[in-house]
Amino acid sequence: MKYERSFNFSAGPAMMPEKVLEEIRDEMMNYHGSGMCVMEMSHRSKVFIDIYEQAVADLKKLMNIPDNYKVLFIQGGGTLQFSMVAMNLMKNGKAVYVETGSWAKKAIAEAKKVGEVIIGATSKDDNFSYIPDCSDMDIPEDADYVYICENETINGTTFHKLPNTKGHILVSDQSSMFLSRPCNVADYGLIWGGVQKNVGPAGMAVVIIREDLIREDIDPNMPIYMMYKTHAAADSMYNTPNCWAIYCCGKVFKYLLDLGGLEKMAEMNEHKAKILYDFLDSSKMFKTVVRPEDRSVMNVTFRTESDELDKAVVKASEAAGFDNLKGHKSVGGLRASIYNAMPEEGVVALVDFLKKFEAEHK
Amino acid sequence: MKYERSFNFSAGPAMMPEKVLEEIRDEMMNYHGSGMCVMEMSHRSKVFIDIYEQAVADLKKLMNIPDNYKVLFIQGGGTLQFSMVAMNLMKNGKAVYVETGSWAKKAIAEAKKVGEVIIGATSKDDNFSYIPDCSDMDIPEDADYVYICENETINGTTFHKLPNTKGHILVSDQSSMFLSRPCNVADYGLIWGGVQKNVGPAGMAVVIIREDLIREDIDPNMPIYMMYKTHAAADSMYNTPNCWAIYCCGKVFKYLLDLGGLEKMAEMNEHKAKILYDFLDSSKMFKTVVRPEDRSVMNVTFRTESDELDKAVVKASEAAGFDNLKGHKSVGGLRASIYNAMPEEGVVALVDFLKKFEAEHK
Repeated sequence: MKYERSFNFSAGPAMMPEKVLEEIRDEMMNYHGSGMCVMEMSHRSKVFIDIYEQAVADLKKLMNIPDNYKVLFIQGGGTLQFSMVAMNLMKNGKAVYVETGSWAKKAIAEAKKVGEVIIGATSKDDNFSYIPDCSDMDIPEDADYVYICENETINGTTFHKLPNTKGHILVSDQSSMFLSRPCNVADYGLIWGGVQKNVGPAGMAVVIIREDLIREDIDPNMPIYMMYKTHAAADSMYNTPNCWAIYCCGKVFKYLLDLGGLEKMAEMNEHKAKILYDFLDSSKMFKTVVRPEDRSVMNVTFRTESDELDKAVVKASEAAGFDNLKGHKSVGGLRASIYNAMPEEGVVALVDFLKKFEAEHK
Repeated sequence: MKYERSFNFSAGPAMMPEKVLEEIRDEMMNYHGSGMCVMEMSHRSKVFIDIYEQAVADLKKLMNIPDNYKVLFIQGGGTLQFSMVAMNLMKNGKAVYVETGSWAKKAIAEAKKVGEVIIGATSKDDNFSYIPDCSDMDIPEDADYVYICENETINGTTFHKLPNTKGHILVSDQSSMFLSRPCNVADYGLIWGGVQKNVGPAGMAVVIIREDLIREDIDPNMPIYMMYKTHAAADSMYNTPNCWAIYCCGKVFKYLLDLGGLEKMAEMNEHKAKILYDFLDSSKMFKTVVRPEDRSVMNVTFRTESDELDKAVVKASEAAGFDNLKGHKSVGGLRASIYNAMPEEGVVALVDFLKKFEAEHK
């Protein structure tokens, strides 16, 4: 082995493909004969514009994005998107949110600053351990959109079926499942995802927005960075973007295409998740917390019978070289995030470790 | 030579120290035995928190930042800071701006969305080719702050003496001069700088703010990302920060300390600038545009007698292996940005090239 690489189960930032990191390393001192590292390039230079255009083209191919959608790269992460979505899309000042956990709640809090939020469905009654029924929600005629967090990183749930929006625009936070499986972009008005989970380095969100939702008649007193039209009109270069993230993500887009695209990723991800869930379902010590039909393929939440034992698992896992198995502080327990770049060996090794731990702590 | 490295005169993103890039390359696959690249680390992990804390400590040492100031790392670049400064610091809804060029104008435009902007001084009358007299501006008693862009990247001017704020808070955009010379932080209420010029990769601004200016009584309906208190209370980790930029900038902070700190950088930068300005002052073909006493040490703007000849210079410079000598599209002409990481050889080589061009085009 050339270098030690750990199995990192962090909820994000998270593992990146080894091959991509090696390419980045090899291009560090002189990118393709430019005499520069990508970090040093003017964002207006031809060499960088080529990197940007290739990244957009590859993402469009990977997700099969229709021509009437724009791809934007915006800083500020999910937190800024919570605000931008509401500030840009609330024309009538009213939107329906599905409350599925920590990240939906944060989106709701920011949207409430902008207009009226109607909770279309919630799974609050059982600690967000399931996806509520969204087949027949009360949606006011004049609601501007329906918002979901399609995969709740902290709670470990996923929408395996999209809500019935009754003809309204669907907005989805896909951060912790972005590029993990195919999706039909035309079903959405806007998809956004922080890239630091399934794709690349933190510091950028990808926004995929239907062009007619980029409002030209937006309140001119809104901060200029918060307007989607600012970023759309300048191809994400109104100001200097996170060029490094565009470069790294572009490499991952290409890597995923080479690997067989999102159908292949979905197959691999489901296979990995099955290995872990099958073990957890058969274990007497570990139990999952999410309703089986709503389980996330990316973030596997589980726990033992006590907080003390959970802590012992985390401690032993660290000693065994596994990183970040602790559940989010807001919910406790254990969590293994197994994003695109987590190899199957990592999941198998984790199951072996958990089996051994269970045997030793009967 | 191990690899070709070009002399890149870009206004930003711009050159980084070769030694820093080599370290980053060497740590790419396994940072200090962690088994991870820094891009893969949870921002909540001990290994990353150590990187963050070291970066903050080194910056405090480098700038000699007093204890009653907070260092914040915020995404969204200068564009978001234009809005955040006004939204967070305008308590009385009134501020004085010094209009020195393109970047001051952008800050003014965003501030006008928030409150009343009083232009304390301007150099508009001569195309922003000088720093206006700020020794006795009309500053209303209840103005919340006085704002300057301390180095105008596009126009090539610098404040070599700070304005007389008559006891009001001074806010400074130091982006294109950040860490290029010592400054007395206590003279300012808030200093911010995009890091993509003199420090590291694009995608982050460093904000140095006096603690009493971090308002707890801020409008609760402001987007949460836009409140300085959000970032201050969470040590820049309310949401996932641009971890990679923190890591790279931290390395540059350490590099500058090792080199002798900001006094040494100022000496080196003035020496480099003198080489170029001395040549320009002696040239019959090239002329500078900025009043000598207001010249920037970082961004050297100059031109020939015609746009055609300017274009010929740019074309010849590219053929000779110099990058990004073209002036900003809004002002034209020529510009050499010679930030901290531009080696003296680069400036000497540029002067040699310009001399040769002049001799050949008499």
